[in-house]
Amino acid sequence: MYILGLDVGTTGCKSIIFSPDGRIVSSAYGEYKLYHRRIEWSELNPYETWNTAKETIRRSIENVRIRPEEIAALSTSVLGEAFIPVDEKGNPLYWSMTTFDARAVEQTRWWEEKFGADEIYRITGQPLTSSMPIYPLPKIQWLREYEPKVYEKTWKFLCWEEYVNMKLCGKPVTDFSVASRTMMFDITRKKWSGEILDVAGIDEDLLPEAAPSGVVIGHVSPKASEETGLSEETLIVTGGHDQPCGALGAGLVESGPAMDATGTVECIGVVLDRPVLNERLRRGGFAVHHYVIEDIYFLFGFNPTSGVILRWFRDNFAEGERMKADEKGVNVYEILMSLAAESPPGARGLFFLPYFEGSGTPTFNRKARGVILGLTLSHKKSDVLRAILEGLSYELRRNIEAIERNGTKISEVRAIGGGAQSDFWLQIKADITGRLIVAPKVTEAASLGAAILAGVGSRVYESIKEAVRRIYAERAKFIPQTSNVEKYGGCYGLYKRIYDALAGIFDEI
Amino acid sequence: MYILGLDVGTTGCKSIIFSPDGRIVSSAYGEYKLYHRRIEWSELNPYETWNTAKETIRRSIENVRIRPEEIAALSTSVLGEAFIPVDEKGNPLYWSMTTFDARAVEQTRWWEEKFGADEIYRITGQPLTSSMPIYPLPKIQWLREYEPKVYEKTWKFLCWEEYVNMKLCGKPVTDFSVASRTMMFDITRKKWSGEILDVAGIDEDLLPEAAPSGVVIGHVSPKASEETGLSEETLIVTGGHDQPCGALGAGLVESGPAMDATGTVECIGVVLDRPVLNERLRRGGFAVHHYVIEDIYFLFGFNPTSGVILRWFRDNFAEGERMKADEKGVNVYEILMSLAAESPPGARGLFFLPYFEGSGTPTFNRKARGVILGLTLSHKKSDVLRAILEGLSYELRRNIEAIERNGTKISEVRAIGGGAQSDFWLQIKADITGRLIVAPKVTEAASLGAAILAGVGSRVYESIKEAVRRIYAERAKFIPQTSNVEKYGGCYGLYKRIYDALAGIFDEI
Repeated sequence: MYILGLDVGTTGCKSIIFSPDGRIVSSAYGEYKLYHRRIEWSELNPYETWNTAKETIRRSIENVRIRPEEIAALSTSVLGEAFIPVDEKGNPLYWSMTTFDARAVEQTRWWEEKFGADEIYRITGQPLTSSMPIYPLPKIQWLREYEPKVYEKTWKFLCWEEYVNMKLCGKPVTDFSVASRTMMFDITRKKWSGEILDVAGIDEDLLPEAAPSGVVIGHVSPKASEETGLSEETLIVTGGHDQPCGALGAGLVESGPAMDATGTVECIGVVLDRPVLNERLRRGGFAVHHYVIEDIYFLFGFNPTSGVILRWFRDNFAEGERMKADEKGVNVYEILMSLAAESPPGARGLFFLPYFEGSGTPTFNRKARGVILGLTLSHKKSDVLRAILEGLSYELRRNIEAIERNGTKISEVRAIGGGAQSDFWLQIKADITGRLIVAPKVTEAASLGAAILAGVGSRVYESIKEAVRRIYAERAKFIPQTSNVEKYGGCYGLYKRIYDALAGIFDEI
Repeated sequence: MYILGLDVGTTGCKSIIFSPDGRIVSSAYGEYKLYHRRIEWSELNPYETWNTAKETIRRSIENVRIRPEEIAALSTSVLGEAFIPVDEKGNPLYWSMTTFDARAVEQTRWWEEKFGADEIYRITGQPLTSSMPIYPLPKIQWLREYEPKVYEKTWKFLCWEEYVNMKLCGKPVTDFSVASRTMMFDITRKKWSGEILDVAGIDEDLLPEAAPSGVVIGHVSPKASEETGLSEETLIVTGGHDQPCGALGAGLVESGPAMDATGTVECIGVVLDRPVLNERLRRGGFAVHHYVIEDIYFLFGFNPTSGVILRWFRDNFAEGERMKADEKGVNVYEILMSLAAESPPGARGLFFLPYFEGSGTPTFNRKARGVILGLTLSHKKSDVLRAILEGLSYELRRNIEAIERNGTKISEVRAIGGGAQSDFWLQIKADITGRLIVAPKVTEAASLGAAILAGVGSRVYESIKEAVRRIYAERAKFIPQTSNVEKYGGCYGLYKRIYDALAGIFDEI
């Protein structure tokens, strides 16, 4: 038997079929567009996204010589926060606003003033700040105010997990991790928060049923079978939010290792056996919510602009390297990494603050901006590149330290996502954090995590722990080099003081 | 009749023959090497430099159909500070240490402690700081300590003006402006400072005769005539330090206009009818010395890394533009300026601090470093380029304001040097400083200034003022655009606060 992990992201989706020992049997990828109809809006077209998803599932099945019935189950890992208002027939009524859609500023401020960010954090584990209106709660209020007809016609507000589940088996069931990210879910009571919904004036019927991850919802419907090529025998199982799914794919089942998922954004997460909520974490922007294992929690910080800065550099300052990559038929990032390696640790005194869209946790300052500091005539492109990698890695260290300050000891860091493909960068991360960095074999950890949940729901595995034992394997380990750790230790102190020195300037820009 | 201005610089020399109305009749350029035998040393080879100079003079004469006798006189404009110990036959005994040769740190500190930087400034007008051992005084002491045999054999320590004069007419006569830059010249008494020489233990006989600029020293010697192609009828006239020569070429004869000379380094200078010396100017790094007109003084500030930053950017981040320039056969800087022009005033929130080798006047901080601040994903290469030009222009504004704070009103700014070739940059300078920026017709102002002195000495002109009236002409004017001036006004305040916020960080790097 096989298991399928579908990962619906911000700009594309992946359908990956795994064997029970974690080997990728088949994989397909489809892209869709992220729309910006207004400058501060950021939306998906639900029709386009679902059409891409179903075609991607179909290609992953057709790519390989297995019979659809051999796929025991499917679970979905999704981008958080994005939601779709649907009518009773399940038809989308509006665009799907994504995480960085910033329109609901006033509604978010309303919650700060009316209810208090500390109180909403106590219930939901989510840090609210009016400068970042991330969550569905204020966005649903925006819809009610500015698109009242849409609101009136809405049967349910669905995030992408339950929307996909509805499309595949008719039942729009979400899981606790995705529900946590709506800012309407009581993480202690494991149900929608009556208190918040009352204040918001939102009827609980407008929200889907929420269940733990890894439980069976139903079978693939005849219609969905026709649309996707899946067998009607395949089970649909609750999946989860892509960050905890990624953590599960990296083998996290209990406290100890941390996940470092480096893509456009970089997320640093740990699992906890109880929700740890305090004022310092809230102000630092750390969210606490349900993990994809029941009664286990997930604490995570983030750097909103990680890999995307390398892409920015590639697009703006690496014309020569792009041409060289085309000529040689190699990946341009490999060339950029080799160039960075020409600069010694510390980038010969250059510092780079990667706050290209504000800083993430733990400084959590929307007004922060990117900085290159320490330039002299002797610096070259290689130094700037190395400084970028080091700056991103200092942010990782800040997050590790902020998480540990709250009593969670981190034993090692498991690196996943596109950024985990560069051994050079992983060694920098080891040297800067002073931690063992482990690269798992599978970097597509979110799909793997979803597939594990599918396998648990469909009894391919007896338990999540058994699944992880069978599936999780290391590709490489990166051990901190003592001399570099010492050098970076001094630089890190200075790195933090640079931010402190500039905080007032960022307020002014 | 014609006049010849020879300009001996750090990496090359120019010999330009002018007609009395300021038209360039012939021009030749020769390069020599700046040697760095040790990392902090920076030297010229006196043989190589003189050989290049005499060949360059020869080419400038042979290039054009004039008879050598038609050249009435020659004056030399020189890089300041660089000097050569010579024996009684005028043969060089050692390399010529240039301005940025940093070996004499201890000797400079000795003066700070033994004599006081304020006292030495009162006598010489030169701001002494041990972090920048610019001047011949401490470097001669270094020679006595580390190369005692060279010191013992030395007949005279000659700067390049008097060395060239000796080579051309046998008499090593310097002028007051070049003498001012040795840190041994009493600018009020117009003679070598007995007080400083006593403390230093340097015999005044080791120094050359100093005269005002524009006075005849002698005729070209038969040997020099053979070496250079000059006529023995041509007069050799005292010239000056390249910055005041440039100012004279830009028509500065009295208070009012300022000179802004933008090459590798950028110098901002004004002429004064008396030496203005105060603690604020000294701490800000402003030097005051003799102008190339007797009893007139020259106050000047500088930015040590101006045009050189554009070269740094070109070499490191403009591969595509360099290729495009080669293809089209145009200057790469033109392409870079067009690119910068794609970004709006304010560079969309980017700030650039150009302290790539420490800051010049008026912050005068050797520890300062270059900074790019305000980066977001939406910034492009064009924004970075514009931010560089704006940062350099904010430094110009700082210097203008620092000079005006001392009671010298600046009526307009005359832009010379390579940087004055970009109208786009000159308009930015106008908008940022709020001043009228004037580009004179001749950008090779240092050679023109020297030629004016030659013409005054040889009576081609009745006076310097008459010479300037005949020679000086404007190529273009750049008037501040009100809307941009307002926008930049706010940015400028923030620009200064960024430096203030980072001053402590620069101490740590």
